[in-house]
Amino acid sequence: MAKKKGKTLPTVGVVGSGSFATAIVKMLLENAKLVHWCVRNEFVKGALELRGHNPNYLTAVAFDVKKLKITTDINELVSACDIVVLATPSIYLADAIEKMTCDYEGKLFVSAIKGIVPKHNDVVAHYLRDVFKIGFRSQAVIAGPCHAEEVAMERLSYLTIAAAEKEHIDALRELFTSDYIKVSCSKDILGNEYSAILKNIYAIAAGIASGLGYGDNFNAVLVSNAIREMELFLDAIYPEHREVNDSAYLGDLLVTAYSLFSRNRNLGNLIGKGYTVKSAVQSMSMVAEGYYATRGIYEIAYEKKLKTPIINTVFSILYEGKDAEKQFKKLTEKLT
Amino acid sequence: MAKKKGKTLPTVGVVGSGSFATAIVKMLLENAKLVHWCVRNEFVKGALELRGHNPNYLTAVAFDVKKLKITTDINELVSACDIVVLATPSIYLADAIEKMTCDYEGKLFVSAIKGIVPKHNDVVAHYLRDVFKIGFRSQAVIAGPCHAEEVAMERLSYLTIAAAEKEHIDALRELFTSDYIKVSCSKDILGNEYSAILKNIYAIAAGIASGLGYGDNFNAVLVSNAIREMELFLDAIYPEHREVNDSAYLGDLLVTAYSLFSRNRNLGNLIGKGYTVKSAVQSMSMVAEGYYATRGIYEIAYEKKLKTPIINTVFSILYEGKDAEKQFKKLTEKLT
Repeated sequence: MAKKKGKTLPTVGVVGSGSFATAIVKMLLENAKLVHWCVRNEFVKGALELRGHNPNYLTAVAFDVKKLKITTDINELVSACDIVVLATPSIYLADAIEKMTCDYEGKLFVSAIKGIVPKHNDVVAHYLRDVFKIGFRSQAVIAGPCHAEEVAMERLSYLTIAAAEKEHIDALRELFTSDYIKVSCSKDILGNEYSAILKNIYAIAAGIASGLGYGDNFNAVLVSNAIREMELFLDAIYPEHREVNDSAYLGDLLVTAYSLFSRNRNLGNLIGKGYTVKSAVQSMSMVAEGYYATRGIYEIAYEKKLKTPIINTVFSILYEGKDAEKQFKKLTEKLT
Repeated sequence: MAKKKGKTLPTVGVVGSGSFATAIVKMLLENAKLVHWCVRNEFVKGALELRGHNPNYLTAVAFDVKKLKITTDINELVSACDIVVLATPSIYLADAIEKMTCDYEGKLFVSAIKGIVPKHNDVVAHYLRDVFKIGFRSQAVIAGPCHAEEVAMERLSYLTIAAAEKEHIDALRELFTSDYIKVSCSKDILGNEYSAILKNIYAIAAGIASGLGYGDNFNAVLVSNAIREMELFLDAIYPEHREVNDSAYLGDLLVTAYSLFSRNRNLGNLIGKGYTVKSAVQSMSMVAEGYYATRGIYEIAYEKKLKTPIINTVFSILYEGKDAEKQFKKLTEKLT
């Protein structure tokens, strides 16, 4: 355990070696004396230990290797830590965590994953609860708006930490707050998880519109419809008093729908420009979470009979082979 | 009067020859056989009549001169029209309309102005009511999100028409709806006016942040705080059941805060980069409405004791000579 201003900080570890995982390790090192880091394979481990840089993502970020305890063994990491931050792409989460055989009772699991676990077609919070018996009281969620690339540049960013237990919120706020990171708090674990997933689908929609040649005026209408659709979805899934214009919901949607750093927006843009869905997905070096999330979210909206024209439009283009131009033409009639 | 699908359209005129006025004339000509247009001076009138282009704004838009009745005399225009669309910059409105001596009873005045009338420090709806005895039932407001530049390119845009009388809404919807313009309706005249003004101030704030080097993550937080601040302001000024995430409010804020076409954002950007306020204002060829609006809106917020940290920050920089970097540093502590 490390100390910050006389207080004892819990031992913390990060699972994953993509760009957001790398940004999280960087943020934690502003406060923690040591960060445990479970990376994907020996190559990443070796490169980090030798050169102090992630060889694949946010390569410009220099780490002090003495402050990292790098492993490829999730049991080693979980056993050593009080707090485990899960930050793999959602499609790799099961691979990583299902090797966990050690005792993890009493530990706090923090999801920084913005996607659906494909095998279970469910959000991380449910997956952890149902498969690993990790209850909501042992969970937390980290929400944006927070592009990893800007964390790497130490540009001021705001995180939202959602957890059921105040002591967990306090511990995480302590660990993450720094000169360039401010932390807001929330109790809305599921709302934050779903909104972080939904925003990726809306970013794909914004990208498709841009690729098709729609302009700024239309995009503003699309995004303002998207936040209303998101609110409808969240209220149906998990009714709770929430201000959907808080940074964790609307802010996260904005950064994803507008930023050129957004891979979901870029995926949509390629499709709007005429790439096939398959070639657009393949051309991306990083996983666009929204692609995988669209199916699961569409199914939920369909089952619950929700009026979600934007989600339905993206689904029809990504999974039903429908023509993007025609589908967007129809969508424009449904927006207000 | 012209006919559209067998219906008789009212006679319509536009006052102003800036970019949005020019865009409005273009939109109206999609339906009206003739549009009356009161421009600023003989030079603009002559150039339009001779070449069919506004010599100063949206110069690429070609007009069929036979369908325009151009004048520099507001009495000639008002006398000839059932509907008068006011589309000057707010600082020039009094100059233009105070020459009006003809009978204007029974005519509909439509404001497309997004600013405060400086001499009266009030919105256009109040100015028309108080100075000209034009009641709210003889008024309408056109709201965005609708950058004139994209109208010129015929990119799909959505207008919101706010009016008290259904027949006015129907008439305006008929006049404006076209292949590239969709029209939503509202009864919230004052809310739409104030939000159109407020969004310019927030766009200046977004521009200052960008000029100072803040990134996309911060901008998303700023805009999500701005829409909450806007809602607080609107509810205090004019309580009414409104969905602030509708396109006319949030959408208009987004297009102004994010688009590179936004002159208010550009003004802020220059200030953030270190230009003095005076030189930034002077360097712009077009009026940035938000500059003039900031003082009036700040005074309202101050009087009503509203918690509006973004408006206060912009005011302190524009009018109190405060340092942008320091003021934004303080602002970052107040956002969530």
